[in-house]
Amino acid sequence: MSDSNGPSERWLDGSIMARQGVAGGRVGQTYRLTEAVQGDYHYTIGPYSEPVMEIDPGDRVVVDTRDAFDGKIQSESDSPSELLRMPFLNPQNGPISVRGAEWGDVLAVYIEEMRTRGEEPTGTCCMIPEFGALTGTEHTAILNDPLPERVRRMRLDDEYIYWSERNVLRYRPHIGTLSVSPEIDSINALTPDQHGGNMDLPDMAPGSITYLPVRVPGARLFIGDAHASQGDGEVCGTAVEYPSTTTIRVDLIKSWHITWPRLENEEMIMAIGSARPLEDATRIAYRELVRWMAADYGYDQWDAYMMLSQCGRVRLGNFVDPKYTVGAGALKKIVETH
Amino acid sequence: MSDSNGPSERWLDGSIMARQGVAGGRVGQTYRLTEAVQGDYHYTIGPYSEPVMEIDPGDRVVVDTRDAFDGKIQSESDSPSELLRMPFLNPQNGPISVRGAEWGDVLAVYIEEMRTRGEEPTGTCCMIPEFGALTGTEHTAILNDPLPERVRRMRLDDEYIYWSERNVLRYRPHIGTLSVSPEIDSINALTPDQHGGNMDLPDMAPGSITYLPVRVPGARLFIGDAHASQGDGEVCGTAVEYPSTTTIRVDLIKSWHITWPRLENEEMIMAIGSARPLEDATRIAYRELVRWMAADYGYDQWDAYMMLSQCGRVRLGNFVDPKYTVGAGALKKIVETH
Amino acid sequence: MSDSNGPSERWLDGSIMARQGVAGGRVGQTYRLTEAVQGDYHYTIGPYSEPVMEIDPGDRVVVDTRDAFDGKIQSESDSPSELLRMPFLNPQNGPISVRGAEWGDVLAVYIEEMRTRGEEPTGTCCMIPEFGALTGTEHTAILNDPLPERVRRMRLDDEYIYWSERNVLRYRPHIGTLSVSPEIDSINALTPDQHGGNMDLPDMAPGSITYLPVRVPGARLFIGDAHASQGDGEVCGTAVEYPSTTTIRVDLIKSWHITWPRLENEEMIMAIGSARPLEDATRIAYRELVRWMAADYGYDQWDAYMMLSQCGRVRLGNFVDPKYTVGAGALKKIVETH
Amino acid sequence: MSDSNGPSERWLDGSIMARQGVAGGRVGQTYRLTEAVQGDYHYTIGPYSEPVMEIDPGDRVVVDTRDAFDGKIQSESDSPSELLRMPFLNPQNGPISVRGAEWGDVLAVYIEEMRTRGEEPTGTCCMIPEFGALTGTEHTAILNDPLPERVRRMRLDDEYIYWSERNVLRYRPHIGTLSVSPEIDSINALTPDQHGGNMDLPDMAPGSITYLPVRVPGARLFIGDAHASQGDGEVCGTAVEYPSTTTIRVDLIKSWHITWPRLENEEMIMAIGSARPLEDATRIAYRELVRWMAADYGYDQWDAYMMLSQCGRVRLGNFVDPKYTVGAGALKKIVETH
Repeated sequence: MSDSNGPSERWLDGSIMARQGVAGGRVGQTYRLTEAVQGDYHYTIGPYSEPVMEIDPGDRVVVDTRDAFDGKIQSESDSPSELLRMPFLNPQNGPISVRGAEWGDVLAVYIEEMRTRGEEPTGTCCMIPEFGALTGTEHTAILNDPLPERVRRMRLDDEYIYWSERNVLRYRPHIGTLSVSPEIDSINALTPDQHGGNMDLPDMAPGSITYLPVRVPGARLFIGDAHASQGDGEVCGTAVEYPSTTTIRVDLIKSWHITWPRLENEEMIMAIGSARPLEDATRIAYRELVRWMAADYGYDQWDAYMMLSQCGRVRLGNFVDPKYTVGAGALKKIVETH
Repeated sequence: MSDSNGPSERWLDGSIMARQGVAGGRVGQTYRLTEAVQGDYHYTIGPYSEPVMEIDPGDRVVVDTRDAFDGKIQSESDSPSELLRMPFLNPQNGPISVRGAEWGDVLAVYIEEMRTRGEEPTGTCCMIPEFGALTGTEHTAILNDPLPERVRRMRLDDEYIYWSERNVLRYRPHIGTLSVSPEIDSINALTPDQHGGNMDLPDMAPGSITYLPVRVPGARLFIGDAHASQGDGEVCGTAVEYPSTTTIRVDLIKSWHITWPRLENEEMIMAIGSARPLEDATRIAYRELVRWMAADYGYDQWDAYMMLSQCGRVRLGNFVDPKYTVGAGALKKIVETH
Repeated sequence: MSDSNGPSERWLDGSIMARQGVAGGRVGQTYRLTEAVQGDYHYTIGPYSEPVMEIDPGDRVVVDTRDAFDGKIQSESDSPSELLRMPFLNPQNGPISVRGAEWGDVLAVYIEEMRTRGEEPTGTCCMIPEFGALTGTEHTAILNDPLPERVRRMRLDDEYIYWSERNVLRYRPHIGTLSVSPEIDSINALTPDQHGGNMDLPDMAPGSITYLPVRVPGARLFIGDAHASQGDGEVCGTAVEYPSTTTIRVDLIKSWHITWPRLENEEMIMAIGSARPLEDATRIAYRELVRWMAADYGYDQWDAYMMLSQCGRVRLGNFVDPKYTVGAGALKKIVETH
Repeated sequence: MSDSNGPSERWLDGSIMARQGVAGGRVGQTYRLTEAVQGDYHYTIGPYSEPVMEIDPGDRVVVDTRDAFDGKIQSESDSPSELLRMPFLNPQNGPISVRGAEWGDVLAVYIEEMRTRGEEPTGTCCMIPEFGALTGTEHTAILNDPLPERVRRMRLDDEYIYWSERNVLRYRPHIGTLSVSPEIDSINALTPDQHGGNMDLPDMAPGSITYLPVRVPGARLFIGDAHASQGDGEVCGTAVEYPSTTTIRVDLIKSWHITWPRLENEEMIMAIGSARPLEDATRIAYRELVRWMAADYGYDQWDAYMMLSQCGRVRLGNFVDPKYTVGAGALKKIVETH
């Protein structure tokens, strides 16, 4: 099923999800979370909304995500500042309740594939006043005039993004926002944190498994914000935002005590931190990776720390959101040695 | 009523609250928000909880606040890390619903007085692992061993804090956490932001008025976290935390469009920003102050900016919470000239 | 001599400088460092320039400082961006060599008084493109158009600053830049660091003593950047810059191992840190203050840390320079108890 | 000559260096900068030292670099804190004077190859107290006990690093510190900035060209700090530090007005920023890349900004030095389209 844009699934059998998950690698039922089933999308991620469905560990869900602008931007002459209003951005599907999930467990979300949706698949990218990395913002508050508003709309298919007359980019999809519910807070869909949220990490792509720390009964999975492509940092504030059909498989790992999200793919393990300033996000990610290598891969913590100084990999997720996201990774071929 | 620790109230007649508030300076009914009336205290500030009372603009509320540890730390041999669990810290009274408040209004909260509470008034200060300004934290993530835990308990009265055999400090109370509800999010009681929250600003003392931007019907006022004294930054992570009886008077200003909290006392106006890194909190506070001077005091924005470069005052609120707080102020005797 | 703008000198007898300095409170010779004696002013602070004079501990120097623009801005219609060129800004007097100073000592600089200079004393304040706190800069690099350039020129005397038709400000002078030489580096006059530099701290005023860590033989004292007034943060990037006659008295404390500058006045001791982000400057200042209280005032370090959480004072120096400066202080009446 | 660890040199003919350099791709004389020729190594990078040689654009220099510890750490039982003293770290070869270089030009440094040096090539990695990313430091000042000191010494050859019994890493060398002189300042060899300095960017490897903005006559090239391997961020503070023989080819581009270093290799162009906090380093790098694409590749700046949001690549250099370094890159196959 993931021929189009996911890598081979053979490595999955050895994944943490398969080895430690309740479903043990077995695939259960397939559910469809269409726009109609979803009904109202969510702009805040917390414990106060009604689940749209309940699934078992191992089940697959095919999700119709909306674009981050909720489809409100339909033309290059549209004005983002007139059509968009904070905090009603980045609509999320869910919450999906997972049977048996409780505080101290981990939800594993494997992304099988991400396909364009609609008859004329279209991506949207825009510059929104006081949003982005190379502009003053509500937080980096300055008196300069804002940058101009710009909207780009472009045709997509499952191979390419027809960005401009000059440049065609590869279709390299990932999911921007993936979350479980915080324990008592409800966090807007633009902010990443320990629950996941708007991490905008290009590695969260078909062929990856994201691990999220469960804090409420049923975990309450939220998903949205598909990107057809995104550079490191999502520097202008938005990616190639598009409505997708995203297929995920969900499993549950009991009693795995993690604090921040983690990710695994065929090549690498990665710990994810979200904070400001950016050095704190990086510190979180690397500390979590050191601790992970010490707890699960048999490294002395100082050996892990010193070796990562020679081979650690850093990925900048977003640095435009209320918190910035960084992933710190290590190659499996290095850490899985004995 | 505020003889003990509030300054003279004469200036109040000329305050923004008195001039623009619905109550116009008239004092309405007095309510008592005792522990019994409060029932469950709150650890998250949002639109999802039941109001404990409904009041009119101009009404006074006498509030029994709990200390930030919810009274769990009773002895210097107690272990904070065993007794406290995030996010169940900093219990808040409220929400108090204010009739007529709606999105785009401003809630004005005048603090009349703050008194110690209980038969043997006691303050508590402690060092909590990975919390504070001079230690690694969950965000400034490091591998160093945490600092030792420490608890200090001390006698208080309405004049002094009997800190140690060597040092007696003045009782200079202020309220650490004062909030209205965000629009759809619910934010834990440790985090300051546009809604107010855990700002830990010593200026938020008897004799001050705090202005908060209303985002939901009824405004939903939360209050807690009384400090008998606090230095700039609350550097070890906690102040002299104590159960107080705090008397506030609440008014409503219709259609005043502010984004961040503001404060006024007899001498000064102050804009408040909360963010990380600390320069962003400072930028927010100063930009809001420039805009305030331009909108309400007749300054050209560049004149305001350049003059604040000569006479602006900065107060560091906390720099230990998930976001840091800074107030930028200007003397009324300067900005109220014509 | 310091009647005009310095506080009483009686406290000086009990100052650290008087108690521990080589001169022991005695005042030596008085030297005049006029513009003619100075010759070329310096834009970089290091060990590679020729001393303009050599003095003994206890000597007094009367220094003619230039304004931070080197006098190049003479009219409100001048264009800062045409007249100024980095790094040739903020001209410094010195270096003054102090006999007997060597690595590990501390230079004490007491400011006796600061007077306006010239027949028609004039202050200059300006907005320089990409310089200031509420604008993008070379470091906080953005794509927004820069703010407009603005120049303000105003009459001064030793009591007032005639800022505008609307506002007259008090003459509250301080010295913006005070330094010894780094060991092998040479640091431009706009950057504060361990050697002192462009700290822009309003407490560095007549009646204060600044302590600087000596790193090279003779210490090599540099001084400049007089401000007739400055708000916390120097938010638009410049203060009321003016040519001054600044009188200092210099002493030497042997073998006092400090890493960052410190300050003392009649009321307070203060440790000074300079770094980015602003939280790091604040951390440095507070850590130095904790260590100072532990080393010299008999406090257990955790007691000092916890008590500063109740009574510490923070002053924001500049937050517009390549590094930001923060002072963390404690009242002498608190720390000098026994 | 670069068979061992440099990629093919064919792309060089189309490089910016070849197309715009004074030497136009021709290779001139080859010089040897041995330890004996070098004599004293330098710990500060500025205009105040004597050149060790003068070369012409196009000339090749074979440089014997020392390891970052100046060879002082010879055993795993050595104590870094006893043997190392700031600022006498990271010894630099040079300065090499380049004929014809003057303010406003750009020095191009192509790294041909980097080989291990000595009879038993050995790498050294260590944990130094208060140095590294996951520890308190002199700037992120905390009261926690420092991390333990650790030294790792390991055998190297031009293919592998024999890191531990468990892990063998690839020999992937790069040069950590590459600089021209600042105009009047002298900056210690641990700090990166506009002049280059201690960027610790793994892309600065054999097969890359670094472009540096000339600020003084002769440019004054400094080079040192070879790393046999380094992960993103150099997280423990040190890489596999080793004495190398590094062969560079130097050219001069007249009147190319750049402010920050840039890099080019076969696949990518990259702009480099160094600052704190880390977001500022990233902002600098991305802004420079946007401007580069606008100036030299025919992009409208908003198109460049929005497209980089889809395809920009970020590399974290060091985040352990006094300033952090980030590279922002774009694939040539994207930006060189027409």
